[in-house]
Amino acid sequence: MNAKKAAAEKAVEVVQDGMIVGLGTGSTSYWAIERIGERVREGLSIQAVSSSLASEEQAKKLGIPLIPLEQVKSIDIYIDGADEVDQGFQLIKGGGGALLREKILASSSKQFIVIVDDSKMVETLGRFPLPVEIVPFASHLTVEKLRQLDGQPEIRMKDGQIFISDNGNYIVDCHFGTIADPERMSAEINAIAGVVENGLFVHMASQIIVGHADASVKVIHCNPRQ
Amino acid sequence: MNAKKAAAEKAVEVVQDGMIVGLGTGSTSYWAIERIGERVREGLSIQAVSSSLASEEQAKKLGIPLIPLEQVKSIDIYIDGADEVDQGFQLIKGGGGALLREKILASSSKQFIVIVDDSKMVETLGRFPLPVEIVPFASHLTVEKLRQLDGQPEIRMKDGQIFISDNGNYIVDCHFGTIADPERMSAEINAIAGVVENGLFVHMASQIIVGHADASVKVIHCNPRQ
Repeated sequence: MNAKKAAAEKAVEVVQDGMIVGLGTGSTSYWAIERIGERVREGLSIQAVSSSLASEEQAKKLGIPLIPLEQVKSIDIYIDGADEVDQGFQLIKGGGGALLREKILASSSKQFIVIVDDSKMVETLGRFPLPVEIVPFASHLTVEKLRQLDGQPEIRMKDGQIFISDNGNYIVDCHFGTIADPERMSAEINAIAGVVENGLFVHMASQIIVGHADASVKVIHCNPRQ
Repeated sequence: MNAKKAAAEKAVEVVQDGMIVGLGTGSTSYWAIERIGERVREGLSIQAVSSSLASEEQAKKLGIPLIPLEQVKSIDIYIDGADEVDQGFQLIKGGGGALLREKILASSSKQFIVIVDDSKMVETLGRFPLPVEIVPFASHLTVEKLRQLDGQPEIRMKDGQIFISDNGNYIVDCHFGTIADPERMSAEINAIAGVVENGLFVHMASQIIVGHADASVKVIHCNPRQ
């Protein structure tokens, strides 16, 4: 069993009948959705909302009941991966470009369970490029402000074109190297006019579940919210 | 001469040959653009960028040379109105729905000159509804978070439909009543996933020029930036 699958399956143990469950996106969330599908076939009764089309399609194939996000006032549990997790349990997410939708789901969930393999655990955030979503209007001025923060910003490209997010915006990957104070950095970035959101998830995780190659898992409880 | 015109004409005195000038939008900026047009006909040599289509068209008619924002690295002087100005010279802008573009211009300008008639000067911000631009995705969840900040949020409508900003987003008008600490409020609002920008312009004004009905003006220098 791989490390990602081990973490994902541990997280799904928390899911109970009657819950509204947020489905994450990516290679670790894939395993969580697979396991939720198994439990639904075994009789688990839940409703799910999805952070992406890919996860929505996977859930549909598995018979997981989906409801439109518009019908949901709050999410009981959101299970998703992360690109980096630091010693204070702050996260970088959004390598896949869906940081805004993922952050909206995470911030509207009673519990946000982060599932990662042990390679994602770091001392300090920032080796992984921090994705920042910006509006296309005057993007060169917004990029310049990220440069002034020492972000070495690069507008994300795909197939020779500027990558466009689900919300019609650009993603700028910022290479800070180290982000010693994620809370402050997040506030500084969000204060830039033209920035929609950034990939720092600060004080948002309820649990971090870390999977190892031997299929063992470590569960870290942090900042429980209700 | 009306109060708005008096403030606007005073501001335009600062414009000099060679400058890149940002043109604001609204009934006070209208007079500034008119006066810039006169000075251009008298021989003033500047280039202008515009915060809206309306101002762009006014400038074109007056023969003010316009350049695309994409060609501009920084703006020498940005002249625009405000909906409220408090005792600490913080502003609410964006009643017209263009807060994001206006904020990008203001934050990329060496000097931001605010022109208002005296009715806009208030003890404390917040009687004027604070506009907040949010992404359409999961807007009900974002509105709920603004409600939790006691913003009494209302999605702005136009002709029975949701008003759509220049950037394809929604505008939520928040009725806080009083905003005692605009800097903190701005940070709290911008920290909400789903919020693109808010209409609080904090520590951005270089000068406030206040016009009175008798055509007298008061010039307030504040937080000069270079």
